Amino acid sequence: MAKKRQILVIGHNTNGCTPEHEKVAYDVGVEIAKSGSVLLTGGLGGVMQAASHGAKDAEGLTVGIIPQDDATLANEYCDIVIPTGMGLTRDFLNALSADGIVVVGGGSGTLSEVCAAYMHKKPMVAIRNLNGPVTQYIDGYLDHRENVKIEGADSAQEAVKKILELIK
Amino acid sequence: MAKKRQILVIGHNTNGCTPEHEKVAYDVGVEIAKSGSVLLTGGLGGVMQAASHGAKDAEGLTVGIIPQDDATLANEYCDIVIPTGMGLTRDFLNALSADGIVVVGGGSGTLSEVCAAYMHKKPMVAIRNLNGPVTQYIDGYLDHRENVKIEGADSAQEAVKKILELIK
Amino acid sequence: MAKKRQILVIGHNTNGCTPEHEKVAYDVGVEIAKSGSVLLTGGLGGVMQAASHGAKDAEGLTVGIIPQDDATLANEYCDIVIPTGMGLTRDFLNALSADGIVVVGGGSGTLSEVCAAYMHKKPMVAIRNLNGPVTQYIDGYLDHRENVKIEGADSAQEAVKKILELIK
Amino acid sequence: MAKKRQILVIGHNTNGCTPEHEKVAYDVGVEIAKSGSVLLTGGLGGVMQAASHGAKDAEGLTVGIIPQDDATLANEYCDIVIPTGMGLTRDFLNALSADGIVVVGGGSGTLSEVCAAYMHKKPMVAIRNLNGPVTQYIDGYLDHRENVKIEGADSAQEAVKKILELIK
Repeated sequence: MAKKRQILVIGHNTNGCTPEHEKVAYDVGVEIAKSGSVLLTGGLGGVMQAASHGAKDAEGLTVGIIPQDDATLANEYCDIVIPTGMGLTRDFLNALSADGIVVVGGGSGTLSEVCAAYMHKKPMVAIRNLNGPVTQYIDGYLDHRENVKIEGADSAQEAVKKILELIK
Repeated sequence: MAKKRQILVIGHNTNGCTPEHEKVAYDVGVEIAKSGSVLLTGGLGGVMQAASHGAKDAEGLTVGIIPQDDATLANEYCDIVIPTGMGLTRDFLNALSADGIVVVGGGSGTLSEVCAAYMHKKPMVAIRNLNGPVTQYIDGYLDHRENVKIEGADSAQEAVKKILELIK
Repeated sequence: MAKKRQILVIGHNTNGCTPEHEKVAYDVGVEIAKSGSVLLTGGLGGVMQAASHGAKDAEGLTVGIIPQDDATLANEYCDIVIPTGMGLTRDFLNALSADGIVVVGGGSGTLSEVCAAYMHKKPMVAIRNLNGPVTQYIDGYLDHRENVKIEGADSAQEAVKKILELIK
Repeated sequence: MAKKRQILVIGHNTNGCTPEHEKVAYDVGVEIAKSGSVLLTGGLGGVMQAASHGAKDAEGLTVGIIPQDDATLANEYCDIVIPTGMGLTRDFLNALSADGIVVVGGGSGTLSEVCAAYMHKKPMVAIRNLNGPVTQYIDGYLDHRENVKIEGADSAQEAVKKILELIK
């Protein structure tokens, strides 16, 4: 099988993304590239752009799955763009395309991706001490089904190390 | 405009749905039908089926938007079935199709619909004192953007009254 | 089962729709309503609007599944609107939601719906002597698989009569 | 911009694919890889698999956008898999993701992708003298709008040369 490991990084778009989020996301992107995995993101700004930037600086391969139907609206660090034309409904495609997920803060959009990933039993690691609605679920489950635990990590390095182990 | 008011009811599928959830959902369906609104659901079991049952008993009109591509998989109380063939990604279509939403408990799937509805600024009312991940957001917001507050209600009657006011 | 018969009418949007197409589409809408079936369309202009207009004049029930995420963009004759936010990708949802399909002329968009319907083995009847790329397939098959024959009809009345028989 | 040129190859799945189709598709995949473009396909068998095989043999990069929600169902020559879980509705995502398209025969599924590509004005080149419903449109348009002409080519080499020119 030619298929490469595909790791999705999710978090705030431009609105809500702090320099701290961007720094962590960039480092997560670097680590994913160094592991030989493909970085998958939603292809827009904030955490998505910072992670893609990091992956490209580390000579990785990046894919952006965007809401719009126009590939030129992806950030400049995406090697491959999937312009879905489906609006935010594309959040589910992001989750489905991931072998594992690293969460870097984020709001309601990130939470919808976490829900989708949880329902499809995708391994997830979330960086601790970044605010937003996903934070409260770290080391726990989204609901009574206990499909998959959302693991916590204290750094970009630990997050990528953990997600690689969870993917096996 | 011929368009009728469309109210979405969301909550647990068969797995996780208690008799209490079903009772409340049935009553919500009755109230929606009595208001002359169309009841929209995800078309499957549990809360979706109970609400549709209530709406049909009150001579209302019901629509089920289901994950599968086969209309016969909807519950027996759906007048109209939209078989999306998109899997759980259809959660976003449910939210987009709603003028307003009533939440009756629910787990990660319900939470994904709440996220979708929140991002598209749809009015939402959630029944209090039913467990599940949505409960904690009652009288609050999903994230810092404060797109739309999730209002609480103590009964089916109050929930439908409130959502009708919010829709205007 | 509460489910009603759902018949999809497809054809030109405003661009390409002649008064002749509109007249036939209106009559098809009337006949569908008179048969007690729900009329399903793509919810926009041209053939979609004319068929919905006819169905409403005959006191039928109409559903519009539209590309946009804003229900107010449907034509004024839709009782229920499903705003998919998926762009033209919604053509597949139209086909999946149909128990049977009546084709009233149409261009590339209509042809994409015919392809989707054919792959899902939906009964189809097309009105003869209206131009456009679907016309050539009347009384034949889209490809070597011979999934479903596209039946021809000379009038709105004959088309609806035939599709009702094919649905059984 | 990091984005690479993305060329979609479409045609028969296993059912309907002859050794001749496979040979041409393989060669198209080789040429796309040699041009430094990313090969995009629907990720399944027949023409999709043969083109991906060719691209991998020429050390290219391959993406498969599949109907299922399980990445392991893609053919073995896909570096990156987007498991949409949307069924055949994913045909529209294939078209949207393409900068240009090479058509190698094909049936109703291929025709639906051609319709989607035509509506989104994507450059297309089709190999001549392979049967199927797309063949008849070579050197012509799908409908009266004349969005984009479907160019013909007599060989894999000519097809890729032409599509590269059309993409600019």
